Amino acid sequence: MSDQIQVARPSGRAAHVLRPITLTRQFTKHAEGSVLVEFGDTKVICTASIEEKVPGFLKGKGQGWLTAEYGMLPRSTHTRMDREAAKGKQSGRTQEIQRLIGRSLRAAFDLEQFGERTLHLDCDVIQADGGTRTAAISGAMVAAYDAFSKLKERGSIASIPVKHFVAAISVGVYQGLPVLDLDYLEDSNCDTDMNVVASENGHFIEVQGTAEGVAFDRATLNQLLDLAQLGIQEIITLQKQCLSL
Amino acid sequence: MSDQIQVARPSGRAAHVLRPITLTRQFTKHAEGSVLVEFGDTKVICTASIEEKVPGFLKGKGQGWLTAEYGMLPRSTHTRMDREAAKGKQSGRTQEIQRLIGRSLRAAFDLEQFGERTLHLDCDVIQADGGTRTAAISGAMVAAYDAFSKLKERGSIASIPVKHFVAAISVGVYQGLPVLDLDYLEDSNCDTDMNVVASENGHFIEVQGTAEGVAFDRATLNQLLDLAQLGIQEIITLQKQCLSL
Amino acid sequence: MSDQIQVARPSGRAAHVLRPITLTRQFTKHAEGSVLVEFGDTKVICTASIEEKVPGFLKGKGQGWLTAEYGMLPRSTHTRMDREAAKGKQSGRTQEIQRLIGRSLRAAFDLEQFGERTLHLDCDVIQADGGTRTAAISGAMVAAYDAFSKLKERGSIASIPVKHFVAAISVGVYQGLPVLDLDYLEDSNCDTDMNVVASENGHFIEVQGTAEGVAFDRATLNQLLDLAQLGIQEIITLQKQCLSL
Amino acid sequence: MSDQIQVARPSGRAAHVLRPITLTRQFTKHAEGSVLVEFGDTKVICTASIEEKVPGFLKGKGQGWLTAEYGMLPRSTHTRMDREAAKGKQSGRTQEIQRLIGRSLRAAFDLEQFGERTLHLDCDVIQADGGTRTAAISGAMVAAYDAFSKLKERGSIASIPVKHFVAAISVGVYQGLPVLDLDYLEDSNCDTDMNVVASENGHFIEVQGTAEGVAFDRATLNQLLDLAQLGIQEIITLQKQCLSL
Amino acid sequence: MSDQIQVARPSGRAAHVLRPITLTRQFTKHAEGSVLVEFGDTKVICTASIEEKVPGFLKGKGQGWLTAEYGMLPRSTHTRMDREAAKGKQSGRTQEIQRLIGRSLRAAFDLEQFGERTLHLDCDVIQADGGTRTAAISGAMVAAYDAFSKLKERGSIASIPVKHFVAAISVGVYQGLPVLDLDYLEDSNCDTDMNVVASENGHFIEVQGTAEGVAFDRATLNQLLDLAQLGIQEIITLQKQCLSL
Amino acid sequence: MSDQIQVARPSGRAAHVLRPITLTRQFTKHAEGSVLVEFGDTKVICTASIEEKVPGFLKGKGQGWLTAEYGMLPRSTHTRMDREAAKGKQSGRTQEIQRLIGRSLRAAFDLEQFGERTLHLDCDVIQADGGTRTAAISGAMVAAYDAFSKLKERGSIASIPVKHFVAAISVGVYQGLPVLDLDYLEDSNCDTDMNVVASENGHFIEVQGTAEGVAFDRATLNQLLDLAQLGIQEIITLQKQCLSL
Repeated sequence: MSDQIQVARPSGRAAHVLRPITLTRQFTKHAEGSVLVEFGDTKVICTASIEEKVPGFLKGKGQGWLTAEYGMLPRSTHTRMDREAAKGKQSGRTQEIQRLIGRSLRAAFDLEQFGERTLHLDCDVIQADGGTRTAAISGAMVAAYDAFSKLKERGSIASIPVKHFVAAISVGVYQGLPVLDLDYLEDSNCDTDMNVVASENGHFIEVQGTAEGVAFDRATLNQLLDLAQLGIQEIITLQKQCLSL
Repeated sequence: MSDQIQVARPSGRAAHVLRPITLTRQFTKHAEGSVLVEFGDTKVICTASIEEKVPGFLKGKGQGWLTAEYGMLPRSTHTRMDREAAKGKQSGRTQEIQRLIGRSLRAAFDLEQFGERTLHLDCDVIQADGGTRTAAISGAMVAAYDAFSKLKERGSIASIPVKHFVAAISVGVYQGLPVLDLDYLEDSNCDTDMNVVASENGHFIEVQGTAEGVAFDRATLNQLLDLAQLGIQEIITLQKQCLSL
Repeated sequence: MSDQIQVARPSGRAAHVLRPITLTRQFTKHAEGSVLVEFGDTKVICTASIEEKVPGFLKGKGQGWLTAEYGMLPRSTHTRMDREAAKGKQSGRTQEIQRLIGRSLRAAFDLEQFGERTLHLDCDVIQADGGTRTAAISGAMVAAYDAFSKLKERGSIASIPVKHFVAAISVGVYQGLPVLDLDYLEDSNCDTDMNVVASENGHFIEVQGTAEGVAFDRATLNQLLDLAQLGIQEIITLQKQCLSL
Repeated sequence: MSDQIQVARPSGRAAHVLRPITLTRQFTKHAEGSVLVEFGDTKVICTASIEEKVPGFLKGKGQGWLTAEYGMLPRSTHTRMDREAAKGKQSGRTQEIQRLIGRSLRAAFDLEQFGERTLHLDCDVIQADGGTRTAAISGAMVAAYDAFSKLKERGSIASIPVKHFVAAISVGVYQGLPVLDLDYLEDSNCDTDMNVVASENGHFIEVQGTAEGVAFDRATLNQLLDLAQLGIQEIITLQKQCLSL
Repeated sequence: MSDQIQVARPSGRAAHVLRPITLTRQFTKHAEGSVLVEFGDTKVICTASIEEKVPGFLKGKGQGWLTAEYGMLPRSTHTRMDREAAKGKQSGRTQEIQRLIGRSLRAAFDLEQFGERTLHLDCDVIQADGGTRTAAISGAMVAAYDAFSKLKERGSIASIPVKHFVAAISVGVYQGLPVLDLDYLEDSNCDTDMNVVASENGHFIEVQGTAEGVAFDRATLNQLLDLAQLGIQEIITLQKQCLSL
Repeated sequence: MSDQIQVARPSGRAAHVLRPITLTRQFTKHAEGSVLVEFGDTKVICTASIEEKVPGFLKGKGQGWLTAEYGMLPRSTHTRMDREAAKGKQSGRTQEIQRLIGRSLRAAFDLEQFGERTLHLDCDVIQADGGTRTAAISGAMVAAYDAFSKLKERGSIASIPVKHFVAAISVGVYQGLPVLDLDYLEDSNCDTDMNVVASENGHFIEVQGTAEGVAFDRATLNQLLDLAQLGIQEIITLQKQCLSL
């Protein structure tokens, strides 16, 4: 891989460079937390809603729950997809992603510190250009934080039950070159695709790597993880900035 | 009803005054037409997608088709609603609204003038504050026009197959006073609720009036239709302005 | 429209003439109310069933609920339709109609005057020839009245909680001529189709007008409403006669 | 069982006596065959519809197909049942019955003698008082015969492709007494319940016996089959009479 | 039928000979009862699971419930079938079979003698070669017995609530010859197919005979029942042997 | 982690030791490939079925397809789970696993080398004790190989289109100790759970690590990957042995 330097990414970015990332809070008015997260042309609305009860399996245990759902507007993509509500079922991909978002955010907050409440995270993609699930996780972190802030303002909880900030990013091997934060054009032509979720202390919450074409070796894996850890720290810095923390 | 003048609308508007209406074109980048329509705090993304085929029942007939779908983000509303894709079915209300949008827009365009193509309109509410279906119809008109413009630019059709512009507005009786363009607070407290779709020549496409509490008499119906026709003309003016027509 | 007199309706009826209407009470034996309603060749079985509980959202509020369902036998129509139970879902049209029936009948009765009970109205079309939803509403009124009479006989309620009788009729523009009570042949060739539900005092419960082909103007709308109000009064007279009121 | 003579059936009928059976042809107007069959208070509408195509697995084989569906109006029963179309699925009982009706009628007609057509039988119970499936089979026989007569009239087939008439009846053990044609009251209190379908030559198409409480011995089985064969011959006589054969 | 002796069954068995039958207890480790039943090449895993509650309609009545479910692995059959879980519904055949298994086993046990518990029987076919439902019933009897033995060992019940052993077998007419226990090759070429469930005292629980091609007469029915009663006694002997009773 | 040696695994195994693994070919008789795979007490039936067509999106492209489905018998687990076919939908977990199996096996075979055919892999868990998805992948490899051998024997393909063998194993952190091949008891008490799929040359196909409790650092990740690569090589040796390669 000594020649990696010659590979040009379609986006023109250097291998370790993120797309411009913006986090817009209070994007819609009803939700306790509402964030528009943009990773380049990928745009996801993340809302956090507090419900004053928990699912049946947690009733009476004195702890809270956090769950996530994910969807894409039918024409958020290059060609129109069928609407899942009209088809009457969510695809396997959708379920996989919303389970990932849920697990990632449950790792960020202490479920025992906000009473018998459920935090619902809804991540809806309005424009897709690669990396929707990592944008969703990164935006949902801020929306969830805002929702807990509101609970604290109301006096319902004493402090925000955050354990550590989490963020997510995709990495992949594009024409032999390990790169950070793939856009759609890069993603649909890469050999390996990995989504990494990590916390602010650099520890991993989720590592999901898939060889799309050629299997990847240990050295490549290590390069990808280096890039991911770098990118995640940048995103967590942005999350805290936008929350004035 | 001689005392109507004393009734104060929660919105502070006079009886015949619309909320501020904005139509933002090219709101997302993939769809042939993409409009964010805002009626006050009600915000709906309307996309128009061209598909190069028609449903089975029209195959080989040389004409096109136009169909619509409608959805609400789970937290577009005051309290979070269940996601229809997760429940596995669309509500009766959703189906009723998307059928209405489809009929209304089919009245605006000449299906025989754009070949064996389907125009899919997707109207997704990101923030709801009353009047989502009328905002959706009014915004979808512009999105559809843009999509047909793109078809014309590509040389696929000779001219935009518009018959006449259509727009929609709600009217209702709030505390005895017939008013135009109800917001959520007014809508949830009104006696009669009517949605009107009309064309630029003032003729009706749809009139759907429902007595929520007290049945309404003929005189009231006439006052409501006067208001609706007025409002629809204003919206059609806005549609044409934003299209520079 | 000065030449309207020359338009011959397929049914041979004058513009303002209803089809023969019959209401047969006690049509089946198990239901508290059971009416076969016939508008010409359109035949609908309307049953009213009392259930001694209310849906969850009304529990403990001391009031009742009224809800409706609608269906068509697969071969009630000219060509056989798929059975909705076999397909696993009700069509949008079915849901729209049953929501309309429910709203219309909830306007006829005082839900606060029959205790924590639910009245289920089932309207099943055994033969369709146009106007099934309006026949269903008109027949369900009688079936509901009979069911409440039975509740009163049992001593469960002190009086029948009727606010006012309601009935429904379709009107439309057939070859330029506004006509009352369209049969299938007229309905499938008309430009405008309107369903009107009104109470015995002539006030409107629902007005649902749709331009099938050409949009309709205000004058036409007024002519249609005149016809509808006339027809509804005739039907309400028949409802009361058959109940010996 | 020497004391059987002393057991009084709730219906007052002797053990071997059928309820009054009526078959009303042309009950509805659209279907090629349409029969209202009544076994006492049990009333079923049986329609036979001709479709000019066959299911995929028979395409191009030059033969026909016959299939059946069964349903109950929600308030055909003593207490209201949920509507299967609203629940989104047919019960196991419904599927079992419609499979039985289909098999029984496929035994009556020669599928190779009516071309690539499908005969759809729809059996819809409008009032239930026991024995709905046997009434359905017995009525569907006549509806199917009428539909094939219409095909012959149209010149589509040379002769009615009947192999032999079939009919069905229930038998059971009521308080130790084998009896014919159980009504609801008898059926819900019997130990053994058997549905028998047979042809005019006395041979069996289906024998379905179930011990509800106590298992039944061979002697009882024989008595039940004797009764069933007797009843089925009576019904086949009625079928032919009403068809003027 | 005097020449029956010359008909050779594909399996080479004489008319009254069962396939080799084995019952393997403790086939899997988690279930209270777990039996692999083999009728020749037909192999079914039957598990019996105790749940410490009853369905809603039995709550508080002090009695138990027993229910059954049936499934086939997609490639248990000659050609792969679609997976029912993936299709989102169980076929009519599956539901019919699991209802039959449930009724048959409820006849074997006294539901009033094991408290408010549910016994779930799961019968999953891993290899199919004809007679899966009769193998399932015969194996489920042993699995259920084992599960109740475990309940007794735990001291939850005083004795095993068995009323009588039940077993099931198929019989049919193969090329004119009544034969016992049809394998797939025989089953797919037979004229009449009958499944019989009986108890150890020779009484019938279920008799389900179907004429696949030619209707069958009373004499044939009697020969089939003779064979079935013979086979069932043999199976019940095997059940008791494997339970060391 | 210098004290890791003191942690005793519930299974008594050393950290790097697999459970006994067996692969039984020809486990059932109909499928082209059929393997019972056992990882200790985890038992999965893997069948490979050849279908002589491809899904719509590949028609006419001259290449094959490979897809997988996964299921668990209701009582394969400690407490009975609801049957997915009865519930009418597959869980998110099921879909996630079957997508993983499909991707993993598509990496093992060259889809362009077996014509327009589909290989269906069905992995059905009959007894679960942790690691069902990794056992399924490891067993499906052998079943798929057998199915392609059969295709080759038939002369349908010239050679077995294998690119490289793949196998899968789970690793995790149990009480601070990185361990290989977790059984249920270990799995339900571990902090980090990772499933790794790799090829015989040691390259990765899938790496899916999840922090159940505490996020994991880079050093731990490396230890887990070391263990996984070790275990996968052992399994691939077993796969080849049982295929006599």
